[in-house]
Order: sequence, then structure tokens, then C-alpha cells
Amino acid sequence: MRFDEAYSGKVFIGSHPTWEEAKVILYGMPMDWTVSYRPGSRFGPNRIREVSIGLEEYSPYLDRELHEVPFFDAGDIPLPFGNAQKSLDLIEEYVDSILEKGKFPLGMGGEHLVSWPVFRAMYKKYPDLAIIHMDAHTDLREEYEGEPLSHSTPIRKAAGLIGPENVFSFGIRSGMKEEFEWAKEAGMHISKFEVLEPLKQVLPKLKGRTVYVTIDIDVLDPAHAPGTGTVDAGGITSKELLASIHAIAGSDVHVVGADLVEVAPVYDHSDQTANTASKLLREMLLGFVK
Amino acid sequence: MRFDEAYSGKVFIGSHPTWEEAKVILYGMPMDWTVSYRPGSRFGPNRIREVSIGLEEYSPYLDRELHEVPFFDAGDIPLPFGNAQKSLDLIEEYVDSILEKGKFPLGMGGEHLVSWPVFRAMYKKYPDLAIIHMDAHTDLREEYEGEPLSHSTPIRKAAGLIGPENVFSFGIRSGMKEEFEWAKEAGMHISKFEVLEPLKQVLPKLKGRTVYVTIDIDVLDPAHAPGTGTVDAGGITSKELLASIHAIAGSDVHVVGADLVEVAPVYDHSDQTANTASKLLREMLLGFVK
Amino acid sequence: MRFDEAYSGKVFIGSHPTWEEAKVILYGMPMDWTVSYRPGSRFGPNRIREVSIGLEEYSPYLDRELHEVPFFDAGDIPLPFGNAQKSLDLIEEYVDSILEKGKFPLGMGGEHLVSWPVFRAMYKKYPDLAIIHMDAHTDLREEYEGEPLSHSTPIRKAAGLIGPENVFSFGIRSGMKEEFEWAKEAGMHISKFEVLEPLKQVLPKLKGRTVYVTIDIDVLDPAHAPGTGTVDAGGITSKELLASIHAIAGSDVHVVGADLVEVAPVYDHSDQTANTASKLLREMLLGFVK
Amino acid sequence: MRFDEAYSGKVFIGSHPTWEEAKVILYGMPMDWTVSYRPGSRFGPNRIREVSIGLEEYSPYLDRELHEVPFFDAGDIPLPFGNAQKSLDLIEEYVDSILEKGKFPLGMGGEHLVSWPVFRAMYKKYPDLAIIHMDAHTDLREEYEGEPLSHSTPIRKAAGLIGPENVFSFGIRSGMKEEFEWAKEAGMHISKFEVLEPLKQVLPKLKGRTVYVTIDIDVLDPAHAPGTGTVDAGGITSKELLASIHAIAGSDVHVVGADLVEVAPVYDHSDQTANTASKLLREMLLGFVK
Amino acid sequence: MRFDEAYSGKVFIGSHPTWEEAKVILYGMPMDWTVSYRPGSRFGPNRIREVSIGLEEYSPYLDRELHEVPFFDAGDIPLPFGNAQKSLDLIEEYVDSILEKGKFPLGMGGEHLVSWPVFRAMYKKYPDLAIIHMDAHTDLREEYEGEPLSHSTPIRKAAGLIGPENVFSFGIRSGMKEEFEWAKEAGMHISKFEVLEPLKQVLPKLKGRTVYVTIDIDVLDPAHAPGTGTVDAGGITSKELLASIHAIAGSDVHVVGADLVEVAPVYDHSDQTANTASKLLREMLLGFVK
Amino acid sequence: MRFDEAYSGKVFIGSHPTWEEAKVILYGMPMDWTVSYRPGSRFGPNRIREVSIGLEEYSPYLDRELHEVPFFDAGDIPLPFGNAQKSLDLIEEYVDSILEKGKFPLGMGGEHLVSWPVFRAMYKKYPDLAIIHMDAHTDLREEYEGEPLSHSTPIRKAAGLIGPENVFSFGIRSGMKEEFEWAKEAGMHISKFEVLEPLKQVLPKLKGRTVYVTIDIDVLDPAHAPGTGTVDAGGITSKELLASIHAIAGSDVHVVGADLVEVAPVYDHSDQTANTASKLLREMLLGFVK
Repeated sequence: MRFDEAYSGKVFIGSHPTWEEAKVILYGMPMDWTVSYRPGSRFGPNRIREVSIGLEEYSPYLDRELHEVPFFDAGDIPLPFGNAQKSLDLIEEYVDSILEKGKFPLGMGGEHLVSWPVFRAMYKKYPDLAIIHMDAHTDLREEYEGEPLSHSTPIRKAAGLIGPENVFSFGIRSGMKEEFEWAKEAGMHISKFEVLEPLKQVLPKLKGRTVYVTIDIDVLDPAHAPGTGTVDAGGITSKELLASIHAIAGSDVHVVGADLVEVAPVYDHSDQTANTASKLLREMLLGFVK
Repeated sequence: MRFDEAYSGKVFIGSHPTWEEAKVILYGMPMDWTVSYRPGSRFGPNRIREVSIGLEEYSPYLDRELHEVPFFDAGDIPLPFGNAQKSLDLIEEYVDSILEKGKFPLGMGGEHLVSWPVFRAMYKKYPDLAIIHMDAHTDLREEYEGEPLSHSTPIRKAAGLIGPENVFSFGIRSGMKEEFEWAKEAGMHISKFEVLEPLKQVLPKLKGRTVYVTIDIDVLDPAHAPGTGTVDAGGITSKELLASIHAIAGSDVHVVGADLVEVAPVYDHSDQTANTASKLLREMLLGFVK
Repeated sequence: MRFDEAYSGKVFIGSHPTWEEAKVILYGMPMDWTVSYRPGSRFGPNRIREVSIGLEEYSPYLDRELHEVPFFDAGDIPLPFGNAQKSLDLIEEYVDSILEKGKFPLGMGGEHLVSWPVFRAMYKKYPDLAIIHMDAHTDLREEYEGEPLSHSTPIRKAAGLIGPENVFSFGIRSGMKEEFEWAKEAGMHISKFEVLEPLKQVLPKLKGRTVYVTIDIDVLDPAHAPGTGTVDAGGITSKELLASIHAIAGSDVHVVGADLVEVAPVYDHSDQTANTASKLLREMLLGFVK
Repeated sequence: MRFDEAYSGKVFIGSHPTWEEAKVILYGMPMDWTVSYRPGSRFGPNRIREVSIGLEEYSPYLDRELHEVPFFDAGDIPLPFGNAQKSLDLIEEYVDSILEKGKFPLGMGGEHLVSWPVFRAMYKKYPDLAIIHMDAHTDLREEYEGEPLSHSTPIRKAAGLIGPENVFSFGIRSGMKEEFEWAKEAGMHISKFEVLEPLKQVLPKLKGRTVYVTIDIDVLDPAHAPGTGTVDAGGITSKELLASIHAIAGSDVHVVGADLVEVAPVYDHSDQTANTASKLLREMLLGFVK
Repeated sequence: MRFDEAYSGKVFIGSHPTWEEAKVILYGMPMDWTVSYRPGSRFGPNRIREVSIGLEEYSPYLDRELHEVPFFDAGDIPLPFGNAQKSLDLIEEYVDSILEKGKFPLGMGGEHLVSWPVFRAMYKKYPDLAIIHMDAHTDLREEYEGEPLSHSTPIRKAAGLIGPENVFSFGIRSGMKEEFEWAKEAGMHISKFEVLEPLKQVLPKLKGRTVYVTIDIDVLDPAHAPGTGTVDAGGITSKELLASIHAIAGSDVHVVGADLVEVAPVYDHSDQTANTASKLLREMLLGFVK
Repeated sequence: MRFDEAYSGKVFIGSHPTWEEAKVILYGMPMDWTVSYRPGSRFGPNRIREVSIGLEEYSPYLDRELHEVPFFDAGDIPLPFGNAQKSLDLIEEYVDSILEKGKFPLGMGGEHLVSWPVFRAMYKKYPDLAIIHMDAHTDLREEYEGEPLSHSTPIRKAAGLIGPENVFSFGIRSGMKEEFEWAKEAGMHISKFEVLEPLKQVLPKLKGRTVYVTIDIDVLDPAHAPGTGTVDAGGITSKELLASIHAIAGSDVHVVGADLVEVAPVYDHSDQTANTASKLLREMLLGFVK
């Protein structure tokens, strides 16, 4: 032990010492100001880092260890409280800088709207991008009570950007009738209620495609993720979500970036949601990045 | 926005403006004074209303929206604290008044004993009534430590009222040996541990029957409903309970009333139980009332 | 009991039936999107209403009952999530409408920035307005990390609007050095750490003045108000805050409006903060409105 | 360590092995069925026992140790859930049995109504009884919404039993106007808001009298006792309550019994209320019993 | 009711009056000093006892009642805080004394390291012992950061004691790569992720063997057991764990002792983990002891 | 914003970039394995860092800003779980290394036993050391249930090391009779119950002395510090503790090191204890280091 060395601090377990050497950049997007129900996901990324100390660095699912995929936990992007547009601009600029260096962006939310600028950055680099989206909610609104920048809109914006036929949603169990109808008419894929089985059917069709994976933790049943903004009964188990990540990992798609959003620690006294998120991120890292 | 209008206040999302126009009356029975273990369900109905703001008004399960079934959230029946008999009398009188107008009563407990006066009111109007009961507990005691008015007794009372052969219990995983034996001898249906599969077998036999559905939220596993008086491991998931409600909705029985009881918010820091209850009530409303 | 009547729902205990007859309008401003630390005060007003059922309608401090000051709980102003400017505009318009009818506005926050549009509305009607401000924090920033609309700025804005010599802050124990220096130079009154004693010295100087009272619940010590966004040790007790309200009530100032802000229920498992807020509001109502 | 001995279990720290040898009987009255607001005090006595392990057996205030006052923790009286009258009868019978043996009853509530049968038992034995009552609430109602057996009534009943001139209330800060007026007219002592100073003035007048002390934990400010049914801001500190107990201990009154009621652990995540109650009970025991 | 009788206190529901008459000794091992993540399991046994009051004494799974298997709840072994070696010695001595009398030891942890001295005691009496181990974690480390006495090591120690071929682990989903590799090389059985199905395959091979069953509550998914030291997503349900216990109960192995460890109540606000543990213990008792 | 820079992570607000340049080293001692009641203080230092983001860097009490006292948050000393002796050795070695460089050690506990090796390190460098100790508990035991390394012993050890006449305890309200008697006989200063007034009397006597200040957060009343291992009613307020720190800061003693121990976040849902600790540390830093 060298006492004069800076303690590495609160970073995700196994994080490598420098940005430059890392293949993957793990970063937080601590924004929750457009949520319509329960705020608090701004504290998600830091709690996930904190509890990651309870994780092993080895995945018995993938037989792989964290050191095999050098990643750097870059901390949270400093975002201006209450200013949605500026926050989104900063996120896009940040992800641009990651992609420029050929690194894999692995984001932690924050509310789901943070994925929108990430989609933009990814699409600039990968014009053939497809998005795999796991969520309880459609997130297909054009606006929420007059606000176009809302946590209810990112997937609609994504569909507008990359084409609805390139967006694949799974596990959806809540939304307005109009959202489901719009998706149907637009030719966007929505699997209601389930994730793993429909995903196994979709993945072969995406063979060889460049894919971004965005997971809203509320795709899990409230029993498995009580610490989130909008809980909705009837979701999948963490075992099924792990299997879904492993299904993508074992498929022929080329994952180029991913995020996990909407962990709001204050609603979860036992920290099971943050613990589960830390494990999901380990599996995403080990499974998506070859 | 008209500023001089009264704010509708804390009512279940989508509630219609008046009692008269409504087809369904949603009401609370905030009583918990006979429980033997953890009290607190008196606050269930109001917390369910409060969190219903997180719900969509559309059910992707039933492809139906709340406005298609005009309902009125009538608030909680004011009950005298600690006086069980008088509380039960008030509930019966209240449900009588709903039935008199040909409306559908949809109750929120409160402890399970509140269903007893509802059964009485229903039976007066529907002498051929059958009861579908989902619960972790038999609730078949004749008394609890000398008290005939106890939360452990409502189903026994129901069996006495409408005949044990007209009571169908599902998901039961806790009770005294004597209760199970009594049910067997009396010819009452009890499905232990499971709900959906045995329900699918029973529903055809109830074809054309007039049915009241009473759901104790503790039929769910504690993982899915920690916020209740008596949690008991080994229960069903919220996905299974939703499917069970949809099975009844899609069957040939004629549901004439229903309740959901035993939500005790104080034991659930994340409010997942109240959130789940609000979704179950939306599905009961959209599924049971044609 | 008339069963066909709408239950009045979740309103503050003792609220009168109509807006028109009321002398005081009690309203919520459920906004928390510019806070820099812990969000959640959007749920403050409703929780305060909910727990007000534990209050008596009589104040033994003032020997007065709620029915002597007819007030109407108008609910929460519907505000667009994440859009600060539009929210503030709506609040100002709302308070204008209250003042237009000669009624007394009694607001419940939400974050402290909600007081800013109220100050504007008050000042339009009362150009000689003075503001009494109780808070742990100076709230004198010009901006927060580049954002002029921040929960750290309302008192600075107030000073700009009505003149720093008309703003009187009490109980302040946190701020940047620059804020304290600015106040000193600008001739604004700041009492550090204490409220009651300095207030008793200031009140005679305000004799006959028209006064708005804005109270940030965090002026209380965290022991007395754990449920708030930014707790800060070394505050006053609820007994001292009650006495301070009573000191204003017994003085010769003319209170024309008031608010109580920053109650964030999720950080307070025992709901003591909301309960305390409900009592403070009762005393403000009975003490400030003659 | 003898392994074949029964573990003494969850008893208050320092409890003596047998009922017979004990000078004081410590007993629980786990009833909460008539409360109008938040139930849960039925779990108070057991939580107090559980956390008493954190206490020292020595009081540095009184320079006395628990072994100097042999007491026996007799557990909770088994009470029939939801049956108020029967519960009260059992309590009275129980306290009769303690008094019959010349022992000192030290009760733990439960809601405050449990003190009513204790008053009856005490009065039968001590016809010159005076009652010292510390509470946030008057508890002087004749009935609550039609119920004469309510947690809002025990002091009124006491006044009826032993004469209002023999009841001395301290710390009262909540009640109906009528209750305060009744007390004034009846000649009953009420000290509003404060305990210690008025108590010091009253104690000399009670010199030589036989006194029962009943303490509702909510006489403490919510900061000091969040875990109770009805919290009310503006109360005293635990330091003041300890000093008040010591003032009685050092006076010339003859305390013949006492209780501490309304600890409701579920509302206090840190268990500070139960911990404080355990210390108060130790001081009552060491201070009241010579 | 005899008032002069000692209340039996906080013992597991249905406990028999004396050690001598009991066939089974239920005892707590309140040690948590070597855990690397979240401490608190020292309070597990007492909370399990406390909540056992919510259990029925009858198992509808096994059609058996607690009185059919006389057991004595002997309380917690008093262990010296922070001294791991001495604590383990005391546990071994304690279990020796149980086995000497031919009784069945049923232990409650405490951290998993408490099972190590139990294994030693069991092996002395039953040299052909096999161990069935259900857990999220391998617990196969030789040491943890230099400490051989760590909660990460008991199964490795067990394998060293009774031979790796006699240890059968189920449900494992976390560990170092080296641990899995060691087990493979050593010929120890590890079923990853699942419990019930692999157990059904292993049990016939253990026919007639003497078996000790050790269950770490974290084999359950965090949704089913949030109240434990190290939660890990992707676990089994309480329904599956109950079925696994019943599978052992119905097999031809001879269970001679068992424990359930790692319940840490402070991380579980709803007490669902302790409630679930109490039910699991009832089923272990009724299922394992003929 | 340079995106390729490492985010400084979770350090105390205002921490300087390097160990070398710092005048003060802030470090955590995450040990809680000898506590006899509630563990969890191992997580204290990190939670204090995390919530320090809610602090201003300016003290209006001392009119001083953090940048005026360059300090480096060195993180937590990695300690071996469950091994008390080795942990203490590491802490002593660590503090030696700080003192060797002429820096001021500012420690965060962890249980109070962590102060013992710090005392040793300090005494080696400052043989004329006096200790100011603020605590609810005497901590004067020679051993606890046979263990000499216990959280109940550090002040006794200190008295043995530097002489009882050089130890000054304040705020003590709990201990064994023997401990108080020993202190009296040994000539050690103990101020019972109060801190500020007796401290003001003692400080002049310590004029010119070299002093180490050790504060157990439980010297605060449970209302002000619910998040600690052993809460004890009747303590001082955070306002009084701040004033006591300022009294030392304004006196003529020469403070050469300090610590704040026993913050256990899991027992404090609102994080008020950690927030208060972060403010106390800021004031200790700005007040003690000239």
C-alpha cells in the first residue's frame, strides 16, 4: 500500500486507470428533470458505482472477466439542472468524443430522454443503425403536455431519426392507445409484455446489423426493480433480462453502444435495483464488447 | 385552465365527474381494526388513488381505455375507528345504495373483513351469486381468539351465506389444518398455491353464473406485494394475477362486483404494491365491466 | 351521509366548499426541476394535504379555529414537467387571478424558485411590498452553473424587483461568500443562524408595511425537517419557527400573502416534515389573515 | 454457559427472573384498534424490549443501577384484536393482579386508551389518586365520531373518575377548542406547550400525594419521537422529558404506577423512538420506585 | 390466563417449553463480523422469531403441524463481537452439545461463516456426511484479502473437511473464475443458476446418505430476499426454494441438521425476507425431521 | 470540459488534487467489526463524501472558504474485514505517514475503536498530547465481554497511554457505574450531559497545549443523528456541537489532528446524519487548521 497515492474513489469495480487505454467508456448522465412522475434517477449512476463493490469481476454466464474488456469509468457528465436542451447537447457532444476515438459508449441514466442525444451521435457514425429497446413503456409520444423534450418521447424521436423499421421494442406493457397504433402503422416492431422469446425471433433478422441497445430498468417487474421512476406491474424477471442480454451477446448483431437508464435509488431501501443494474452492466460490457 | 374551478383532487385517474353518470362506483373501505398482525390497510385506498397518476388510461392487454367504462371514484366510506360491527353495517348500506342504482361496485380495502358486508349486499340482489376468491390465506375461521368479526373469517361467513359450493378459492397457501379440512368436507373449492391454471378449469363450470370477485393482494408473492398486512412466501407473480383477471374477463361468467383488499402502504417504501394495485383495478374495471 | 355526493377528496382539512366564498386560496406549486441536489418537492403539497387529517382545526396558540378564516384548497397548479420558464409563467398568472379577486394567496412548494413569480404578482398589486424570508440558504445567486432560473436565485431576483432594502432574510446558515458580501453591500437584511430574536427587532421597523412571507422548510434543523431537498445542520426548532410565525401574527405588519416551500416527502419515512408543514400552514392561515 | 437452559428471550434488559421476587412489573398493552390516524403502536412494547439491549443498566442521572429495583418484564398482555371493551377489561384485571401483590405497575402501550383501565385499577386501590399526564394532545373528548372508547378520550374519563382537579396535564399543544374550555371550567390543570417549568410549580402542591404518571411519547417533538401515531410539531426535547421525570423523582410525591404509550415503530426507520422509550422507562423505573 | 407466569417472550411460534423434551433445537448464531459488504445479519435470528407470529403452525405443502415435531427455540448463542475464531469455537461446542443428546440442530445465521463450525461438529458425529448447499455465491475462497476466516470461505473449508466429492452446491451465480475452476478440478458438484431441477437429479445419487443442508437466503433473487448482505440478481423464487426443500423432504436422504443464514433485516423495510425465512424454517423443520 | 480527463470521483467537496500539496489529509477508516449493537459505520465515510455535494465551500460561521485550507481526500484505508488487530495496525501506520510529512490528519470513522491507533500515532509525535472527547458514551471499559479490542474501550486505552489527566470527555450520558467511578478516581475529566458550557471552562486550562479532538457523532441527540450505531436520548443539538467546534477553533489550544466517527448511514433514511457530519467536518477543517 502506497499511502501517498490517490485512492481511485468511487468508480465502477474493475475500471481501468485511463481513458486512453480503455476500449469502453462507462459514463453517467445524471438528468431527471423532464420526468412526469417520480424524479431521482440523477443519483442512479453514482449508486450503481457504489454498490458495484458487491460484484465479482467474473461472469459465470459468459465465462469472461472484466479485465478482458478494458473499460474506464469516466464519472458523470456535469449537466445543468433543469435545462433539458443544454443537457442533451452536452451528452451528444460527449458521446461524439467517445465515438471519435473508436471507443464503445456504455451509458448510465438518468431518465430515458438522455438516450436521445446518444442515438443522434450513434447515427452520425453508424447510418445503418438499428435500436433494440427494452422497456415497460412505449416512449413514443411526440410531446408530453406540450413539451417535446420529455422522458416519454425518446423512442418516437429515434424512429423519426433512423426510421421506425429500424427500432425494435420489447417488453412494452404501458402506453397510450395512439402510441401503439402509430407504431403499427409506421411499421415499428413492438413486442408486448415479453422480451426473451420475441427477441430470439428478431435477432436472426438483424444479423450483421449495427445495433445500439437501450434498456430502461423498468422493463423489469417492480419486484425486481422497485427503485425507478414509474413502476408497472407484470414485467419480466432479472433472470429473463440477463438471458436477453446473453441472447444478444450470442447473436450475429454488431453492438456498437448501449445504455441502462431510470435507476432511481431513493425508492429502493435495499438497493436491490442498483445492485441489479451493476450486474446488468457487467454482463452488457462482457457480452456486447468482443 | 379555469382557475376558479375546484381541482378534482385525489381521485383515481380517469374518474368521471359525477356519481349519476357512472356505470361503476369505485370506493374505499379504510378499515383495519381486526387484523391480527400488521395494521395499516386503512391507508390503502388513498395511496392507490395517489399513485394511479403513474398509470396510462389504456390497457394494451384488453385494448380498451378507461373512458369506455365511465366510473366515479366516490372516495372512502367514513368508518368509525375501532368499531367493527358499525363499520360493516355502513359498508353494507353503502353497497346497497350502489346496487339499487344498477351500478357496479368496485371496492378497495382495508382488511379483508370489509368484503363480508359486500357479500351480503350482493347476495340480496343476486341470490345465485358465486364468489371467486384469490388469496394467500383460507380466511375460513369461525372466529379468531374468540372474535367472530375478524379478518380471518370472511370466506367462512361467505360460505355460510351463499353455500360453500358457490365459493371458489385460489392461490391459498396458508391456513389452519381445520380450515382446509372443513372446506373439503363442506364441498368448497380450494386451489392450493396456484391461481391461473385451476381458474381456467373452474371458469367453464361457472358459465352464465353471476360472480363476485374478491382479491386479497397477498395472493401475490411478497416480492410483488410487500405492502400488505401478512406477507407469505411462495405466491404468484403480478403477471400471473393479471392473466387471471384477464381469464375471468374473457370467460362466460357475469361479474357483478369486485374488490381488491389488504394494501398497507407503510410496509412498502417504493410504493410498488399500491402501484400494482392501481393497475390491477384498471384491468378489473376494463375487463369485468362490459 | 348522502352516498351520491362526491367525496371532497384529498384537500387540506377544513377547506371550504367553493373558491368564490373563500378569503384565502391554498394552492400547490408542484415544481422541482431546477434543484441542484435532491428532487422530490413536487410531491410536497399533496402529502401535506394528506397528513393534515391528523391536525385539529383549532390553534391553542392563537385561540382561533379554521372556520373563522374561510379558505379553499384549490389543489395543485398543473405545471409542465421540466419547463421552468413556462411553469413560472403559469404560477404568476394563477396568483394574479387570486389577487384580482382580493383573496389571500397561500402557496405550497415545490422548490423555492416557485416563489419568484409569486413575488412578481404580489409586487404588481402591492408596489410597497416587503418580503420576510426564512431559510437556511441565502438563495442570492444570480445563476447556478449558468442557469438564471435556479432554486438558488429567487431572493436575488426579489431584491432586484422590490429593492434589496425591502428584503429581510432570517435563519441563513449557508451560502457563498459572494452572496453574503453582495447582501451587505446592497443593504439587504440578513440574520445569520437565528430567526426569532432578530425578527422581533425587525418587525417594529416594518410597522404598517405590506408584507409577503416566504418560508423554506429547511430553515428548520434537519432534525425537524428531514424531508427536504438540502438539509443543513444547525437550524432552528419547529417550536422557534411557530413562535416566529406568531411574532409576525402579533405585529403591526400587514401580511398579504405567504408560502411554505421545499417539503420533499420521500426523504422522510415518518412524514414528520409534512405533518409539521401542515401545522405551520394552519398557524400561518390563522395568524396572518385577520 | 449452560446450553440446556432456556434463553431468557426478548425481555427488557436487566429483567429479574421471576414475577414473585419483583418489586415492579413491566408489561405491554399491545392495542391500537381505536386510533384515528396511524396504527402500529401494538408493536411498541416488543420493539422497546428489543432495543433495550443498547442501554446501560446504570443511570448517570440518578446514580442508580437496575439491579437496585428488581423488576420483572412480564411480556405483553394477550389482547383480542379489534375488541376494545374486552381488551380494556383484560388490562384492568391484569393491573388489579399486580396491585394486589403490592407491586408497582409500569405499563407500555399501545394507544393511550390503554391507560384508562389502569386508571380504574389504580383508583380502586388509591382513592386519593392524582394523575400527572404528559402529552401533545388533550385526550379530553367524550367520544370520537360517536365512539366513547377512543384514543382521544382517556383523560376525560380519568377526570370523570378521580375528579378533574386531580388531573394535571403538561405539554399539551393540540385539541379541540371545546376540550380546552371544558378543562378550564372543570378546574383541571393544563399546561400548554411546556412541561418542565410548570411541572416544577405543580409538584410542591402535590406533596405527599399518591400519583400515577402517564406519558404519551408524542409529548416529545416529532424530531425526538417520529415513531408515533400522531406527530405534532412544537414539542419538547428528550432532554426536557428526562429532566421532567427526574423532577418528579426528586419531589415529594409518591408515585404508585406509571406508563409510557404510543410508540409505533414502523414510522421510525432508525428506531430512535423505541430507543428513547427504553431510556425513559429505565429512568422512570429508577426514579419513581424507591 | 395466569398472570404470575413468565411470558414465554420472543421465541419462534410453536416452540416447545423445554430443551429436554425437544427433538429439534432451533438456535441463532448472531455473527456478522467477517462480511465484506453489508453487515447486519446478527439481527436475523431475532427478527425471524419476531415475525414468525404471522405464520400458521400448519403446512399445507406437507400436511403436517409444528406440534408433530417438538422443537425448542433456544435463543441466540452469545458470541463475542468482532472475535471470529472464538465465536466459531463457541458455535462448534454448542452444536456438539445438541448432537450429544441426539437432537437435530436447526441453525439461523448470521453470516455464512457460522456454518463452518457446524460442519465440523456434524462431521465428527457423521463421518459419511454430505452437504447440500444452496447459495448465490460459491463461498469457495481460501481466504479473503488475507483472512482465512471470512464469509467467502465456508464451502471451501467444508470441501477440505469432508471431501469435495461430498459437497453439492446449487443456484450458484457469483464467484471468482478460480473458484469455479477449483471446484471442477476437485470434483465438487456445482449447479449454476438453478436449484430445483439439478437437485432432483442429484438426490437419487445421495440415496441413504447422511446429509446436512445449508441455505444462504441469497440463493433467492433479490426480489424475494432484499434483506441480505450481498444481493445478486438472477436468483430463484421463493416458490422454487420451497419446492427444493420439499424435494429433499420427499427423497431418500437422511437429513441430520440444517441451517438458514444471511438474513439481514435492516435492508428490508417490509420484513419480507424475515417472513420468508420463518416459512422456510417451518418447512425445513416439518420436512427434514421425520 | 475536457472529456478525456478522469472525473475526480466521489471525494469530499473542495478536495485538492494531490496528497503532496495538501496541508490536511481527510481519510476514512471503514471498520465496524467490534460494535456490540448496530453495525454499519463502515459505510460512513463514503456516504459523507457523497452528500458533501450539498455543502457550500464557505463557512458563514468562520468566514472562511475551503480553498484557504488545502486538503486532500485520500479515500478509505483498505481494512481487512473482521480482523480488528490488523486493521488497527494499518490505521496507525497510515497516520504515521501523514504525520511524518507534517500534515494534519482528519479522520472519518468507522466505529470509535479506530481512534485508538490514531491516538498512538499522535502521541508518538506529540508526547504532551491532550485529547478532547465528545461522546454520549464513556468508552472507558477495559474490555467488552472479554474482548480488549472493542468499541467500548478506546478512551480507557487513551487514558492509559497519555495519562487520564490529559483526557477531557464531554457530553457523556451513558456508561457503567464502574467507568464513571474509575474516571473520578483516575482524575480524568468527564462532563456529563453537556458539552459547550463545560468546554468553555476547560479550554483556558488547555491554553497552549497540543490537542487531538475526537467526536463520536452520537454525542448529538438521536433527533440530530439517527444514523449511528447506538442512539441515546438526551443529547445535544447540532447547533450546540457546531458552537463547541467553534469554541475550540477560537481558543488558544493547538489542534494537531481530529476525527469524527460512528456515522452509520443505513439507519438514517433521510441522510441527515451524513449531511450533518459533512458540515461538521468542514467546520473542523476550517476551524482547527490555521
